[in-house]
Amino acid sequence: MTDVVIAGLGQTQVGEHWDVSLRELALQAIETARQDAGGLQPQALVVSNMLAPNLSGQAHLGALIADFAGLTGIEATAVEAAGASGGVALRQGYLSVAAGAADVVLVVGVEKMTDKVGGEAEAANATAVDSDYEAIQGLTPSAQAALLMRRYLHETGAPRASFAGFPVNAHANAASNQYAMFRKAISTETYNRAGMVNDPLNLFDIAPNADGAAAVIITRPELLPPAFPHPLVRLSGSSVVTDTLALHDRPAPLVFNAARLSVERACRQAGILPTDVDLFELFDSYSIYAVLTLEAAGFAQYGQGWKMAQKEQISLQGSLPVATYGGLKARGNPGGATGIYQVVEAALQLRGQAGQNQVPHARYALVQCLGGPASTAASHVLETLN
Amino acid sequence: MTDVVIAGLGQTQVGEHWDVSLRELALQAIETARQDAGGLQPQALVVSNMLAPNLSGQAHLGALIADFAGLTGIEATAVEAAGASGGVALRQGYLSVAAGAADVVLVVGVEKMTDKVGGEAEAANATAVDSDYEAIQGLTPSAQAALLMRRYLHETGAPRASFAGFPVNAHANAASNQYAMFRKAISTETYNRAGMVNDPLNLFDIAPNADGAAAVIITRPELLPPAFPHPLVRLSGSSVVTDTLALHDRPAPLVFNAARLSVERACRQAGILPTDVDLFELFDSYSIYAVLTLEAAGFAQYGQGWKMAQKEQISLQGSLPVATYGGLKARGNPGGATGIYQVVEAALQLRGQAGQNQVPHARYALVQCLGGPASTAASHVLETLN
Repeated sequence: MTDVVIAGLGQTQVGEHWDVSLRELALQAIETARQDAGGLQPQALVVSNMLAPNLSGQAHLGALIADFAGLTGIEATAVEAAGASGGVALRQGYLSVAAGAADVVLVVGVEKMTDKVGGEAEAANATAVDSDYEAIQGLTPSAQAALLMRRYLHETGAPRASFAGFPVNAHANAASNQYAMFRKAISTETYNRAGMVNDPLNLFDIAPNADGAAAVIITRPELLPPAFPHPLVRLSGSSVVTDTLALHDRPAPLVFNAARLSVERACRQAGILPTDVDLFELFDSYSIYAVLTLEAAGFAQYGQGWKMAQKEQISLQGSLPVATYGGLKARGNPGGATGIYQVVEAALQLRGQAGQNQVPHARYALVQCLGGPASTAASHVLETLN
Repeated sequence: MTDVVIAGLGQTQVGEHWDVSLRELALQAIETARQDAGGLQPQALVVSNMLAPNLSGQAHLGALIADFAGLTGIEATAVEAAGASGGVALRQGYLSVAAGAADVVLVVGVEKMTDKVGGEAEAANATAVDSDYEAIQGLTPSAQAALLMRRYLHETGAPRASFAGFPVNAHANAASNQYAMFRKAISTETYNRAGMVNDPLNLFDIAPNADGAAAVIITRPELLPPAFPHPLVRLSGSSVVTDTLALHDRPAPLVFNAARLSVERACRQAGILPTDVDLFELFDSYSIYAVLTLEAAGFAQYGQGWKMAQKEQISLQGSLPVATYGGLKARGNPGGATGIYQVVEAALQLRGQAGQNQVPHARYALVQCLGGPASTAASHVLETLN
């Protein structure tokens, strides 16, 4: 397939933006990305969003955001795959460039989750699980994660306290990320003292719902402006894989098969092994998901993923840095925007523009986002060409 | 780009399916399409849906439907662009095959709109218009159409009664469509006597909300089974174009610019002129939209589209048959499924499998669906290769 490269990156502060509308938030990220791309003109727009039809009464986001961004008339659509929406949207944009249908594609993720109080947001989030067989029984996304964590503790003998390493690492990295929701490092003690939310998930095992927008502009390398000011980053691998929507339909619920397969396929396309990557922007919506995706991607054996945080393998200087800008846990989790934040962060790493968060000598990055318990998994390999 | 052909077609009865779940409805259409495609195995699924997150509490439809259809593990996603969702989903599938990312793609549209009573469904429908500037003022999709029809009557001098020809034609064609919601011909008198719903729109100017599912399987021609039993239909042109979401932002609201541009681009790609097509599955969600799209596509001059129904140009034996299976008006309008129904119907015409609804010697079909007042327009050209 055609080479597809990243031309522009944009992101807004993640947090609670009660005074900014959905379209304005999206526009902020888009304008930054367009400036970053040196004036390339997008011909198509893919919008990633999960909950605007429910929480903002607004669907039809393709036309809305294209119009508001001054791009009236371009091809535009919205895609949704729960927490994997961002990765799926990036793949749609990638396919559009790869097919030769558009030269320059803008992919924007935007979400406003904090205008509504907790229960309403959680009910909206629960549209991502099986409504007829799970949500109707009260099973929400965080309850799914709690069931999986309990099962993991039971089956593997991992110590409960060992999960601390993931939020501790995430918060440490977020402290130097100006866009992060929580820029405060936490200690293991803070983690251990945290209140229980959804037993055994405590407050720090759960990424916060947030508002935010992030944007990526992709194109073919030969279309970049002659004086393109950034090191070149290629989308070298792209894969979306699904699994059963309902957790109870899985023979081995602790094995995230779609996460595994999508990593394998994205890496195969990129011509690398997962072990070749220099950082892994994983989907730590719950700390147990960080563990399960490390195992699914092959970085740890079954039942051993929790050890990676203990040995400091996952810090910026470790052998496999994760959540390098704070991850979902500390940068914040703005739903459909999250997958695009991950791509923006990984691309900044590969450009060498990550400042205090820089992973040394980063050449390959693996980026993965999940819808539900990896009911959808989208994985991308980014590669620096400089 | 790679040739992309239609391998399988499936549709369910359009109507009120209170006893069938969303996933079951989708499955019925998928199973028919898979049988029709002679056993081709889909590698990717694109789901078109507008309102399930609001009306059924269910998002994440890619994973849900892939799983329920026995395709667990394939790539899957959902796309949304209001009433244009079906056409946009077909285009996503098309790009996936054209990019070489998947050999066989299943595109399914599914919608359940009748489980909720009128007001709730209309509120959900109103998520397709601009929530901050239109819906908040009470402007719903049918109110938009009413404004446009009033303006059209005022500006062009078209007689109010002249709109009758569109629903009369649609109902006549639906009478012999076993999948149609309303299989009853109506007379001009019936139209003229109909109650006013949203002045000047009467009951027969408005397509009914409905439940339904339709599916299309597409692939590269060389991958078809050797004894493929159907005449070959190619997707020769594909285009999605947007316009302002809000109607008040348009300098000339009666000109559906996105509808015009998407027809031009799809026809250019197919190497034909709009006047070469043998039938036009247009988007008659409101009779005024049938008129405006005929004008936008160039089949009639500005202010003259209403005459096409009077001169019987649009009947099955006319020079430009439209709504050949009843259109949105009489087949019914199951939201995100509608655009796929249109493609199924056009493909049956080109295969020569349309029975009593057959348009003689049909070689090219133009299919168009709209989100809002052509805020998104998706146009496809289908061509028979036999």
